[in-house]
Amino acid sequence: MALKSFVKYSADSDFPIQNLPFGIVSTKQRPYPHAASIIGDFVIDLEEIARAGLFDGPKLRDVASEVFSKPNLNDFMALGREAWREARSTLQRLFAEHSTTIRDSPTLRQKILVPVEATTSHLPFAVSDFSDFSLSMHHMTTMGKIFGAPKLHPNAEDLPVAYHGRSSTVSITGTDVVRPWGLFRRANEAKTTLGPSEMVDFELEIGYIVGTGQKSWVAPANADEHIFGVVILNDWSARDIQGWESVPLGPFLGKSFLSSVSPWIVSLDALAPFSVEPTMRAPQPAPYLRDSSYSAANSGWYDVRLSVELTPAGHTEPLTIAKSNTKDLYWNGRHMLAHQTVNGCSTRPGDLLGTGTVTSGEDPSVCGCMCEMTWRGTKPVPIGQTGLTRAFLQDGDEVVFRGWAQGEGYRVGFGTCRGKVVPAVEPKWK
Amino acid sequence: MALKSFVKYSADSDFPIQNLPFGIVSTKQRPYPHAASIIGDFVIDLEEIARAGLFDGPKLRDVASEVFSKPNLNDFMALGREAWREARSTLQRLFAEHSTTIRDSPTLRQKILVPVEATTSHLPFAVSDFSDFSLSMHHMTTMGKIFGAPKLHPNAEDLPVAYHGRSSTVSITGTDVVRPWGLFRRANEAKTTLGPSEMVDFELEIGYIVGTGQKSWVAPANADEHIFGVVILNDWSARDIQGWESVPLGPFLGKSFLSSVSPWIVSLDALAPFSVEPTMRAPQPAPYLRDSSYSAANSGWYDVRLSVELTPAGHTEPLTIAKSNTKDLYWNGRHMLAHQTVNGCSTRPGDLLGTGTVTSGEDPSVCGCMCEMTWRGTKPVPIGQTGLTRAFLQDGDEVVFRGWAQGEGYRVGFGTCRGKVVPAVEPKWK
Repeated sequence: MALKSFVKYSADSDFPIQNLPFGIVSTKQRPYPHAASIIGDFVIDLEEIARAGLFDGPKLRDVASEVFSKPNLNDFMALGREAWREARSTLQRLFAEHSTTIRDSPTLRQKILVPVEATTSHLPFAVSDFSDFSLSMHHMTTMGKIFGAPKLHPNAEDLPVAYHGRSSTVSITGTDVVRPWGLFRRANEAKTTLGPSEMVDFELEIGYIVGTGQKSWVAPANADEHIFGVVILNDWSARDIQGWESVPLGPFLGKSFLSSVSPWIVSLDALAPFSVEPTMRAPQPAPYLRDSSYSAANSGWYDVRLSVELTPAGHTEPLTIAKSNTKDLYWNGRHMLAHQTVNGCSTRPGDLLGTGTVTSGEDPSVCGCMCEMTWRGTKPVPIGQTGLTRAFLQDGDEVVFRGWAQGEGYRVGFGTCRGKVVPAVEPKWK
Repeated sequence: MALKSFVKYSADSDFPIQNLPFGIVSTKQRPYPHAASIIGDFVIDLEEIARAGLFDGPKLRDVASEVFSKPNLNDFMALGREAWREARSTLQRLFAEHSTTIRDSPTLRQKILVPVEATTSHLPFAVSDFSDFSLSMHHMTTMGKIFGAPKLHPNAEDLPVAYHGRSSTVSITGTDVVRPWGLFRRANEAKTTLGPSEMVDFELEIGYIVGTGQKSWVAPANADEHIFGVVILNDWSARDIQGWESVPLGPFLGKSFLSSVSPWIVSLDALAPFSVEPTMRAPQPAPYLRDSSYSAANSGWYDVRLSVELTPAGHTEPLTIAKSNTKDLYWNGRHMLAHQTVNGCSTRPGDLLGTGTVTSGEDPSVCGCMCEMTWRGTKPVPIGQTGLTRAFLQDGDEVVFRGWAQGEGYRVGFGTCRGKVVPAVEPKWK
């Protein structure tokens, strides 16, 4: 029998009592960014709960008021997993069906439960470092073929390939995607063009957020102790700029104009029931990537369904153009953290580790970016039944990512990660 | 006639009254990190100067005590160039030969001037984002040849190539270089090795530190308004790890274990007298890289002499193994900031922009990294007259970078950026 709350919500709500993710909001009453959770269609004001003295467990009693009044979750994250668990279990207790403390106090209910439409979400964590990986063998294979590599580079099965990303432009969902300017070469042109990117793309990813750092290697079996939770991530890409700049040092401006994240950080505890055997994985990786805790019930892979919706410019209806699943990744979040740290690289609260594009196969309908779907723009894909096609994103197009794990009678969801492409603004060069 | 101070120092001091760079120190009296400058062999305690009410200019009067008591310079940097200039000119006035306020007050002198050996330097800025560029055409050409590219990729003359670096491991000079573990393939081996890097290298760079950020493109002609100053930077590299991981996304673990910076941030105002015509530059770059303020006296290039000294394991004497000069770079700091922002990427106080290896030509004696000097380890170089050679760094080797601009009767120097390679520590994989 599933845990129930006195707060009512539908079975397909992303935010049942089983979830209780963490985020940062501002409200009319409290117009500065501070900590929150969400249940159904109500934001839970954690600062108010702390003020009411309801975080009474040993880890949070003395610090809840302080950490939950901050404009980001980093101080809370730095407290460690026991504190995160205490916060979630306190909330589960307070919002359980027969729990009276909040349910039966109109004053507390009014202060603590705020209709989500009366709140504004803010970036929930201050990004310390952003590393973006490439964990999908499907994605790497297809992208390799598109760019003329007949076979996957052998390092792909050896280690989770990654690059450092840009922290300053990691932004909350809803931030407009201003089409970036840059230098690129069009196909079959010998001259470089300076102009607005003609190949703006999305990348369907999830991002793991480090809660507690370490100055040395983190074993895969210990990684969950450090990972505060997971968000949906759109690592917007300008494929033409990326293509021209990437020799020999990799992507730079093609990625650094924007990365969007969903507002609620879903804990690994909320995802734990959805642990699954992955559809493919490294048979016997290097010792530092071996997960001694691995089992089907604790695999590090989760059955999280992801979808990409596009509302083409001039339309109002979002149309699903792709679906994929994180269980189809070759490496998982534990591998990312272990790889990041094997050379002694230190980690800190607020580090963001992106999975790279989550692609579930070769068909365009399971690809996590347009570059793959459209074979670098050469094979435009239909957008629903509109008669429209797209090679890459056009101005006015809005992209929405969703993700959820399906339980029995409930789902643990991520909310949405959305962004609309708006026209380039030409800087005054002279 | 050169400006003189009542504080005595030799003509080859890095820190005459013409310099007055900014840093962060702790002292016996004030054992927490706070702001400082340096003159000759004396650290200038800026917090004490602020407490004495001597920062009396319009920009600093009300905020000096606060910004100079912080553990990093970011809040001071965020005040903008007028504040930076006011701080430096106030110090130049206070320490001028005939200035009596501090000179004739034993109490103030004792509080404000601390012998450098009685201080500990700390990382002077909190690193927001770290971008590492590749501005040296010499370096790119040689590295290209070493790795089998007969000609430079045409983007090298089109834009300053760059990648995102790791912020968490940017560290103050003197931090040990723990030989990193990683995966790599040895030459002519088909199997990957997991082990301590066998190709630990230095990279002789300078780093530009952003003082004030912007949410849009920064024109080269405006870049100096944003750049707080310059440090020497060693972007330590593990060439074997880098080599194996870099396809297709560029360097990652081969760089992220450590980057070292010198402790004092030298202002562009202190470097301005050393503006020179570069030895090579892009004849007509894209509009966003054109510097409308360019002249020989305001070129954006500085005649900064750099040297690499190596004290081989078991020796005590540092031996100069290479010299180069920042005037031999193809692009400069203004280009880095303009390129970083052309796509709309936002910048923030504390962003670090590295030049990449500063190499002045083909001869090993003017190369800024061992990979170039030794043709990826295949042509070991002699280390002074010791009879020793090195292909890459060995445990116990200490590398010291120095840099200075030579004026008439004084030099504006950077102090040292040093690090000793210490043995790898094997994590417990099982």
